[in-house]
Amino acid sequence: MIQIGIIGGAGYTAGELIRLLLHHTKVNINFVFSTSNAGNKISDVHQDLIGTTNMLFTNTINLEVDLIFLCLGHGNSKAFLTQHTFSKNTKIIDLSNDFRLTHDKEFKNLSFVYGLPELQKETIKKAQHIANPGCFATAIQLALLPLAHYKLLQNDVHINAVTGATGAGTSLSKTTHFAWRDNNFSYYKPFTHQHLGEIHQTIQQLQTGFDAAINFMPNRGNFSRGIFATAYTKFEGSLEKAQKLYTNFYKDAVFTHVSSKQVHLKQVVNTNKCLVHLHKHENKLLITSTIDNLLKGASGQAIQNMNLLFDFEETEGLQLKANFF
Amino acid sequence: MIQIGIIGGAGYTAGELIRLLLHHTKVNINFVFSTSNAGNKISDVHQDLIGTTNMLFTNTINLEVDLIFLCLGHGNSKAFLTQHTFSKNTKIIDLSNDFRLTHDKEFKNLSFVYGLPELQKETIKKAQHIANPGCFATAIQLALLPLAHYKLLQNDVHINAVTGATGAGTSLSKTTHFAWRDNNFSYYKPFTHQHLGEIHQTIQQLQTGFDAAINFMPNRGNFSRGIFATAYTKFEGSLEKAQKLYTNFYKDAVFTHVSSKQVHLKQVVNTNKCLVHLHKHENKLLITSTIDNLLKGASGQAIQNMNLLFDFEETEGLQLKANFF
Amino acid sequence: MIQIGIIGGAGYTAGELIRLLLHHTKVNINFVFSTSNAGNKISDVHQDLIGTTNMLFTNTINLEVDLIFLCLGHGNSKAFLTQHTFSKNTKIIDLSNDFRLTHDKEFKNLSFVYGLPELQKETIKKAQHIANPGCFATAIQLALLPLAHYKLLQNDVHINAVTGATGAGTSLSKTTHFAWRDNNFSYYKPFTHQHLGEIHQTIQQLQTGFDAAINFMPNRGNFSRGIFATAYTKFEGSLEKAQKLYTNFYKDAVFTHVSSKQVHLKQVVNTNKCLVHLHKHENKLLITSTIDNLLKGASGQAIQNMNLLFDFEETEGLQLKANFF
Amino acid sequence: MIQIGIIGGAGYTAGELIRLLLHHTKVNINFVFSTSNAGNKISDVHQDLIGTTNMLFTNTINLEVDLIFLCLGHGNSKAFLTQHTFSKNTKIIDLSNDFRLTHDKEFKNLSFVYGLPELQKETIKKAQHIANPGCFATAIQLALLPLAHYKLLQNDVHINAVTGATGAGTSLSKTTHFAWRDNNFSYYKPFTHQHLGEIHQTIQQLQTGFDAAINFMPNRGNFSRGIFATAYTKFEGSLEKAQKLYTNFYKDAVFTHVSSKQVHLKQVVNTNKCLVHLHKHENKLLITSTIDNLLKGASGQAIQNMNLLFDFEETEGLQLKANFF
Repeated sequence: MIQIGIIGGAGYTAGELIRLLLHHTKVNINFVFSTSNAGNKISDVHQDLIGTTNMLFTNTINLEVDLIFLCLGHGNSKAFLTQHTFSKNTKIIDLSNDFRLTHDKEFKNLSFVYGLPELQKETIKKAQHIANPGCFATAIQLALLPLAHYKLLQNDVHINAVTGATGAGTSLSKTTHFAWRDNNFSYYKPFTHQHLGEIHQTIQQLQTGFDAAINFMPNRGNFSRGIFATAYTKFEGSLEKAQKLYTNFYKDAVFTHVSSKQVHLKQVVNTNKCLVHLHKHENKLLITSTIDNLLKGASGQAIQNMNLLFDFEETEGLQLKANFF
Repeated sequence: MIQIGIIGGAGYTAGELIRLLLHHTKVNINFVFSTSNAGNKISDVHQDLIGTTNMLFTNTINLEVDLIFLCLGHGNSKAFLTQHTFSKNTKIIDLSNDFRLTHDKEFKNLSFVYGLPELQKETIKKAQHIANPGCFATAIQLALLPLAHYKLLQNDVHINAVTGATGAGTSLSKTTHFAWRDNNFSYYKPFTHQHLGEIHQTIQQLQTGFDAAINFMPNRGNFSRGIFATAYTKFEGSLEKAQKLYTNFYKDAVFTHVSSKQVHLKQVVNTNKCLVHLHKHENKLLITSTIDNLLKGASGQAIQNMNLLFDFEETEGLQLKANFF
Repeated sequence: MIQIGIIGGAGYTAGELIRLLLHHTKVNINFVFSTSNAGNKISDVHQDLIGTTNMLFTNTINLEVDLIFLCLGHGNSKAFLTQHTFSKNTKIIDLSNDFRLTHDKEFKNLSFVYGLPELQKETIKKAQHIANPGCFATAIQLALLPLAHYKLLQNDVHINAVTGATGAGTSLSKTTHFAWRDNNFSYYKPFTHQHLGEIHQTIQQLQTGFDAAINFMPNRGNFSRGIFATAYTKFEGSLEKAQKLYTNFYKDAVFTHVSSKQVHLKQVVNTNKCLVHLHKHENKLLITSTIDNLLKGASGQAIQNMNLLFDFEETEGLQLKANFF
Repeated sequence: MIQIGIIGGAGYTAGELIRLLLHHTKVNINFVFSTSNAGNKISDVHQDLIGTTNMLFTNTINLEVDLIFLCLGHGNSKAFLTQHTFSKNTKIIDLSNDFRLTHDKEFKNLSFVYGLPELQKETIKKAQHIANPGCFATAIQLALLPLAHYKLLQNDVHINAVTGATGAGTSLSKTTHFAWRDNNFSYYKPFTHQHLGEIHQTIQQLQTGFDAAINFMPNRGNFSRGIFATAYTKFEGSLEKAQKLYTNFYKDAVFTHVSSKQVHLKQVVNTNKCLVHLHKHENKLLITSTIDNLLKGASGQAIQNMNLLFDFEETEGLQLKANFF
């Protein structure tokens, strides 16, 4: 049993990690660090865990654990790692955006690898420190990876995606107030969402010299979890050719599946899956990609990365029953 | 055109009042007082009013208006009226719970009348100051008034009611956070909700000596507006007799209707109606009562009271299109 | 009082028409025709109307009324008008897509005018028969009209829009089943939605020779009513210039308003408004347009057209309280 | 690996069974019988299973499997078992209400045991045929079992419960149409719900002679899954005493937990848990009980019964991640 520490235990992503790790057969949660909740039961915050665990949050950190998950707000992981030095054997998976971009990957004596298994599973297996991808970034990259891999991204890409309220985190805010969001719809950060950096970086890694635009419109949906993204771009080949490329590219992916039928969000909610669907209209290829923002878009993918880091079965602890209804 | 002032203009009930008053043919909104929003457009807060009004919030109060609506938090109306003295001709409709109970009705030189038109329309017409009923209190009283009027409340009453998220006001809170409330259900204040005081007072007024229990379970529903209440109690007569009593009691009520068919919440959402339905099972009479918590349960009833105070048509400004879907 | 007949009274659009017409001061509903519901109370189907009207559905048609609204399924209006001949003075407003396109506008001895007031208010005023625009078509045209009017649509347009479940009509279907749609999201008819015909026709009318692509992705949202559409295209001028063009174009529009602040769907739900917002990013102009699909997107716009046909105040009967929460 | 057959594979409960059994380590799904879907992929109906299973529905039945789950409409299980005779070693778990009541338990040469583990785990372990309890019946019995066990149910019980739309099954109906149910609330079958039979039978089994009333008001909530039930009755002892009785009664229950804090529905959604909470007000004990109607209220409990029948770990395959957000 490897020993796990979780830093920042009160948010959504930490909650999902704890839910998953409690039933993972190869790990033990050594501690869950939360300054604001130290001494309280974990199930006081993550209240579905009543009857599952009696663990308490703690304000002490075991620097010798085998693996640390950092579930801190963006910008706070660097600060935390400046203040705390773990054993050189301790692996780290960071869920923030602090170490995802090339110029952030080397920090102190740590070296972070971008943790998108569909992009670079072998590199992840050999890594020590993982920068876990963003939620929108995951959904969108999984829509575009095969095209970039085969150097077939030639034109502007037009992406529209909608995320659930958990995408905004646990802090109370006007746009996550129930009476505002219920039966409402809106966009935010048009063309400038912070995940575009990761997306561009990956596409450049696969298809150097890509210089068309990636237009990304993120939206707030009136649901709690999930991301549904559509992307279209010019594509000269047939639908069959595209399906072949995608199916081939994802043949070893254990969670990303190409669906021959149209997809909808609830197929993946509460699972670690990404479903991808292709449609061709005239010279446009339309790619749909849908994930659970807290699982494949955050904590599920973090566990997947953990499984790769420790050479566990990649699906261990992640064979989740969908909340299909 | 009578001149209207609104005190505390940023909350839900003030918003609904403004929406309604802007299209009322007999009144003019003289000012909307809000310290936190003074100088801002009303449509910056009540954003559906873009294109409808360019009025600004103000921090000055015209003490000579014909009518003041107080839309302040519970407890704050007394404080406000201690600090501000309106013209003796100014009528006041208070939407808080500060003046609803007998021992609160006389305050300074003001004398408040409980503003439930189905209970005492004639008294309201002659009043100067109105204590507008609470939302749950309105739904539940309208379920029980006929029985109390005919002195037929003999046994314990069992009430279960569910309210939308707007019932909790505009402040951000855990139980109005979207990710918490979406697809959730819970109760609060079992048997001790503060509206029980008004309900008991009214029942005593109609049926002195009633001494059985009124058991009231309030619930939080995962919808934005409306209250759906069911109440049952022993009743010896037939269903037909009950229907006759209710229909007769409400024959002059312009917004409260007895439905011969089962009712559901969305029949009344965004209207000033109360729909009442009766069902008999063995010796129990089941009464359903459903209202929009912000209209018949707050601002709509306040306008109805205004219409009565100023001898306008009772339905003026309140013939609202339901948001049935 | 003009006399009104409604054909096909059980659907959403007929329901909304009835709700609005009952409180319109210049009209009288002469009959509501429904073969399946003949003899039943209108309030048995449109159940919020309990206490508002006791009218019954009928299966007889008064061919002499002043105005007929056709609320029939697409394709059925032509069939109906083939079988029934109204007085030559009877005006007709058809809510289907049967008469919207140029080659459909002349039918028997009838001549239909496309009823988008923001496009051609004066033409509508002189018309006898109106083809009421589609819901998506309304939202999208109101986003693009000013650009087309000033011949500034030069490049491909990229549109993403989401509609509520009422957009699918009252028939039961898998994608309007609650357990499927709740907290779900999906697209349909990518790039081929039937409203594209109306949209292209209008743009050609204003900007002859426009030959770039209009890419339209329609989506199903998990809310009941409303359409939220975003459209972007290359635009060389500044944001200020765009705002000036839009504000100027809509200066006489009574329901379409240019908002300087970002907009969200619930600002317009249960109103006849369209809110338009502009944003510029690099060389792209992003236009947001949001309407209630059943009001400005159907029955509200039909009443607006009626007001124009009969020279009533354009806003008569349409000053609706939003269901903002 | 025991071999499993599922009869009636297209509904919600069959879908949940399949989702759970696919990851159960001790069983193999031998066949899923569905006449309407024979030859189709299971993942065409239960669409979250894309990438998880390639199994097809079949129209042939293996009469020699170790265990059959019957997921047929109420009344159809008897018909099915009249037409099909399984091996005498085949165990049967029926999810309908056909065999729950004493007078239904013996059928042909089969003998059914009521499958509520908290009531009679040892009896279930020795059984061959299980009548799986109803969803409301499960939630309500788990609220009342300890009182009945200690013969402390002395007075009328007042129960209000709300269920999600999946409680109505997969058939399309008016009350599960999205535009009707979204943001709506209503009751049905007041005081006469069919699950009262099971509830009374169990209470009599524990507390012979109980003759007070069980008043049960079922409601339709605007969410997809879950049941939230409150029950109150007179109770002379202290809250502490009640908590002690409940905690003691459920000390060996692996899925039913007594929470010292108030509970809400989403704590149990997508899990097999039941959370029970106690509150005392004056002489009333208020018991809250909440479950997922499709899991502890149907398929999860069926798996739990399977685990008991085959002497597997009781929690095997049921350690589910909640869909807490």
